[in-house]
Amino acid sequence: MKISVLGTGIVGQTIAGKLTELGHTVSMGTRDAASTKLRTEPNRMTGVSFSEWHQKYPGVIVQDYGKLPAEAGLYVNATSGTATMDALCLVGKKKLNGKTLLDIANPLDFSKGMPPTLAVSNIDSLAEQIQSEFPKVMVVKGLNTMNCSIMVNPDLITGDHNVFLSGNDDGSKLLIRTILLDIGWKDRMIIDLGDISTSRGTEMLLPLWIRLRGTLGTPEFNFLIARNI
Amino acid sequence: MKISVLGTGIVGQTIAGKLTELGHTVSMGTRDAASTKLRTEPNRMTGVSFSEWHQKYPGVIVQDYGKLPAEAGLYVNATSGTATMDALCLVGKKKLNGKTLLDIANPLDFSKGMPPTLAVSNIDSLAEQIQSEFPKVMVVKGLNTMNCSIMVNPDLITGDHNVFLSGNDDGSKLLIRTILLDIGWKDRMIIDLGDISTSRGTEMLLPLWIRLRGTLGTPEFNFLIARNI
Repeated sequence: MKISVLGTGIVGQTIAGKLTELGHTVSMGTRDAASTKLRTEPNRMTGVSFSEWHQKYPGVIVQDYGKLPAEAGLYVNATSGTATMDALCLVGKKKLNGKTLLDIANPLDFSKGMPPTLAVSNIDSLAEQIQSEFPKVMVVKGLNTMNCSIMVNPDLITGDHNVFLSGNDDGSKLLIRTILLDIGWKDRMIIDLGDISTSRGTEMLLPLWIRLRGTLGTPEFNFLIARNI
Repeated sequence: MKISVLGTGIVGQTIAGKLTELGHTVSMGTRDAASTKLRTEPNRMTGVSFSEWHQKYPGVIVQDYGKLPAEAGLYVNATSGTATMDALCLVGKKKLNGKTLLDIANPLDFSKGMPPTLAVSNIDSLAEQIQSEFPKVMVVKGLNTMNCSIMVNPDLITGDHNVFLSGNDDGSKLLIRTILLDIGWKDRMIIDLGDISTSRGTEMLLPLWIRLRGTLGTPEFNFLIARNI
């Protein structure tokens, strides 16, 4: 299907690359596509610049948010949480209305130093704010509780671990579930938490995730809900 | 050792019972011990009243917070989060100073309806507030991320799952680790997250825990950090 990924950072690249490999037609939205395409500074984590990444995936159209193709059936929000609302406004309600938006962002606020806090939490969430601002968009929160390397390659971790879904629209959650299964997630690893307000819980996992990242010395871990089945 | 458990609800009973079975001398603190001991209303979850529970553990001294024996080497905070500060103040700094306090409470605020929110989160935590108010107490946060049935019986869930520790004092964390091993936790299941500020992360797990409790239809699950070792 035609998918627009918002955000050209490492998370956006990882998701866009995987969706391309799965046969989807992927475009990427960014604030200034011309300058994004010229970026040659290596990513801190991967050592690969956007230009180099794009050479590997030349079929991915990189476009200003406002100029993304109109026919995308799915949008993926891979912007930083604090930039999300601006990005979505630039894409525009006209294109987004009636579409599914997979929100994989987290509202991390680095402005007060490390570790980051959450810009919104406890009584609200980024996903709920998006849903409230774009009531005709079917927002599904998911994949935000793990490193992007695991999002697109769950087999990186031996054994089961979970991905959580939150959203008000069952059809949209089914679409995301189908894509997750395509990526390699197993049905039993997908936990549908319920409506979009349940995304508070998964966004609030981030403070623990960040501390575990430090304690374990690697981002290659994920949450499993251990239970007897 | 001599241990004082603060709080006589189901969590306090479960912890006090297990510590008694392990051979410790346990006292329990409550606001009004005389009326607590007379309680015959059955607990919502267990169907067992405090009086009935106490008949099973007659060696447990139940006392007003202010009259707890002075010689306890360990305190366990099993009060509700919103009642914690009052309870600790009633016990008093004189008894608490220099002692280890295992804080298993969560700052759940039910005043705005269900699901509860957190009374403190994101930029602070209940455990940090206790540490700040009682700077000479060695506060260790732990066991607060699971149902009390699992706290005292990790084998309830097949396979590994985790208990997290946060605290500034390594000796106190070692004491708690020893007790956890006695209870039946395996060393590899205990994750030391670091200083007391890391308790923000584990207290902020509660919103997800509460939603999972509903989705899974049981409180008998726990978090596992899945990783390749």
